[in-house]
Amino acid sequence: MRVINFNAGPAGLPLPALERAREELIEFKGSGMSIMEHSHRGKDYEGVHNEAIALLTELLHIPDTHQVLLLQGGASLQFAMVPMNFLPKDGTADYLLTGVWSEKALDEAKLLGSPKVACSTKNADKKYQRIPKQSELKLDPKAAYVHMTSNNTIFGTQWMDFPDTGSVPLIADMSSDFLWRPFDVSKFALIYAGAQKNIGPSGLVAVIVRKDLIAKGRQDIPKILRYSTHAENNSLYNTPPTFSIYLMRNVLAYMKSAGGLKQVEAWNREKGSILYGALDRMSQYYKAPVEKDSRSYMNVVFRLPTEQLEEKFVAEAKKAKMVGIKGHRSVGGIRISTYNAVTVDNIKTLVGFMEQFAQANA
Amino acid sequence: MRVINFNAGPAGLPLPALERAREELIEFKGSGMSIMEHSHRGKDYEGVHNEAIALLTELLHIPDTHQVLLLQGGASLQFAMVPMNFLPKDGTADYLLTGVWSEKALDEAKLLGSPKVACSTKNADKKYQRIPKQSELKLDPKAAYVHMTSNNTIFGTQWMDFPDTGSVPLIADMSSDFLWRPFDVSKFALIYAGAQKNIGPSGLVAVIVRKDLIAKGRQDIPKILRYSTHAENNSLYNTPPTFSIYLMRNVLAYMKSAGGLKQVEAWNREKGSILYGALDRMSQYYKAPVEKDSRSYMNVVFRLPTEQLEEKFVAEAKKAKMVGIKGHRSVGGIRISTYNAVTVDNIKTLVGFMEQFAQANA
Repeated sequence: MRVINFNAGPAGLPLPALERAREELIEFKGSGMSIMEHSHRGKDYEGVHNEAIALLTELLHIPDTHQVLLLQGGASLQFAMVPMNFLPKDGTADYLLTGVWSEKALDEAKLLGSPKVACSTKNADKKYQRIPKQSELKLDPKAAYVHMTSNNTIFGTQWMDFPDTGSVPLIADMSSDFLWRPFDVSKFALIYAGAQKNIGPSGLVAVIVRKDLIAKGRQDIPKILRYSTHAENNSLYNTPPTFSIYLMRNVLAYMKSAGGLKQVEAWNREKGSILYGALDRMSQYYKAPVEKDSRSYMNVVFRLPTEQLEEKFVAEAKKAKMVGIKGHRSVGGIRISTYNAVTVDNIKTLVGFMEQFAQANA
Repeated sequence: MRVINFNAGPAGLPLPALERAREELIEFKGSGMSIMEHSHRGKDYEGVHNEAIALLTELLHIPDTHQVLLLQGGASLQFAMVPMNFLPKDGTADYLLTGVWSEKALDEAKLLGSPKVACSTKNADKKYQRIPKQSELKLDPKAAYVHMTSNNTIFGTQWMDFPDTGSVPLIADMSSDFLWRPFDVSKFALIYAGAQKNIGPSGLVAVIVRKDLIAKGRQDIPKILRYSTHAENNSLYNTPPTFSIYLMRNVLAYMKSAGGLKQVEAWNREKGSILYGALDRMSQYYKAPVEKDSRSYMNVVFRLPTEQLEEKFVAEAKKAKMVGIKGHRSVGGIRISTYNAVTVDNIKTLVGFMEQFAQANA
């Protein structure tokens, strides 16, 4: 029996995408082999590869000015690739700090040049519990780029409106909220997203990059670490993670068949409304630390009256077939990750459990 | 119906490893979810991760002096990571050129420092049809390391005995023949192998590295590109490609149950003996260009009398359910990749086909 999976990532995947993978795991489309046994230069795999890119392009209305790349190494390698490619030796880049992952991105850039912190919402407790306002950003018009993290998994905050960076290229790590809703891709010079939250298994990162930015990338770095190498070869310069891309294809095909990103957003808004509504209603018992207009629709964090009760909450949820709800070890508490594969019904089940728990353990 | 898969990589996988994956694709060990939906910090995935490393350690008798890392980016990223970590700004490294992939490794090193070509077996036709002798290597005792490619997929050559590099660390790209037989790991300072030939799906690279070498790696490069980062975190610094590692675990478990590397080598020797035996017997018709003592047990290349006959050979083989035999586009001809998942019976079937074809098209 499948459990309700609130893991922070790798996260749950839509059951139809997994069932399709199981169905053809050993025999892909009558070819006599698994898709993972196909050559990445053959027609069968190429069809999957290009379909995955086409589905992403269609779902997000990606304009012709941008190109989709499918790479390896996760967001963590992007933390390094972005400054390797685009941070000039004698220039700067602006980093917007809203959590641990943006700090990590900054740390890699520091090893490669002179990035600046254009804003940080870290509070006196060393926590990031809100998203900055535009007026707080100290942007340098001469920066090579501005880097932001659109959703912060550990602290449970999320950018609802994206910052205005004028003519400076905006680069976003969207690993943990990519495809939670439609958005205007043209506002971004580069977007990267590890697949393992909303769109597939781990081991794959989707990159959407403006073509004119690719061309400006440095050429004195290893070829495998240049965006231009992968752009020129349709992400087939070296052997791609074929099965992960195949699974992403399955997830995107399911999203399209379910009604596209507008439907996905409607579900996510409903999930957020139900769960945050419950937290606000039971605010005597459950404490949600994030400022209301910075609340994440992907990671909902809260505390119970004591750590002991939090442990009991996790244990009883597990008995009720709800897993992956323990807060990140650095902050404690409870974290409900509500990525795309989590359904509205899953959230209703959770809220029912929360109500019972609060009553029984008041 | 499964075909006979002679793909050069991604290659065929043992059917029991795939069947096990299909069996538990949606429900891993009663956990209510797929292994790819598990957190990489949870006990279930951790069990798989550590089992994969333990199986590799057991199969190869990896000594305590060395550590196994499971990384992303394939051999192509290793081409860059090796010099980034170990090529000093004021030092050199020796590269042994035996094919296209060793040239690519050299090209990345050139962007990062001053590597030297310590030997090349490229002939007047720009082909590499043999492995060098020890006496041909112009090794610099002050080199930071020696880099070699143990098997050359395109030209079909393979090192049978490894070079003696004295006290200079020996680094080998073993992507295309890793685990084809047992070997003495202690001779190597670092081994890397993309999984997609003998041990798993693409998107995963196994690295075996001497612990004292890790410690000498440069610290002024991005953290994600340091071997030390991954070594200190048991390859869990960032989210690993969990499903690819799970599948590698399945393949290694199957290899162990089948009798370990001695059995694997016996099968590979028998396959090579049957196929090269047939080529030598029919040498009037099939031309094998590689020098006999440099012949690869993993990629067997040969030519037919004309290119037209080669096309016919590929087409008729496909009708007989044998696929993936076209030579690399850069050299043409026929290439039979005989990785571990190819059975002795598969080779016998192929040889029967070759005999019939030669007779019918003399």
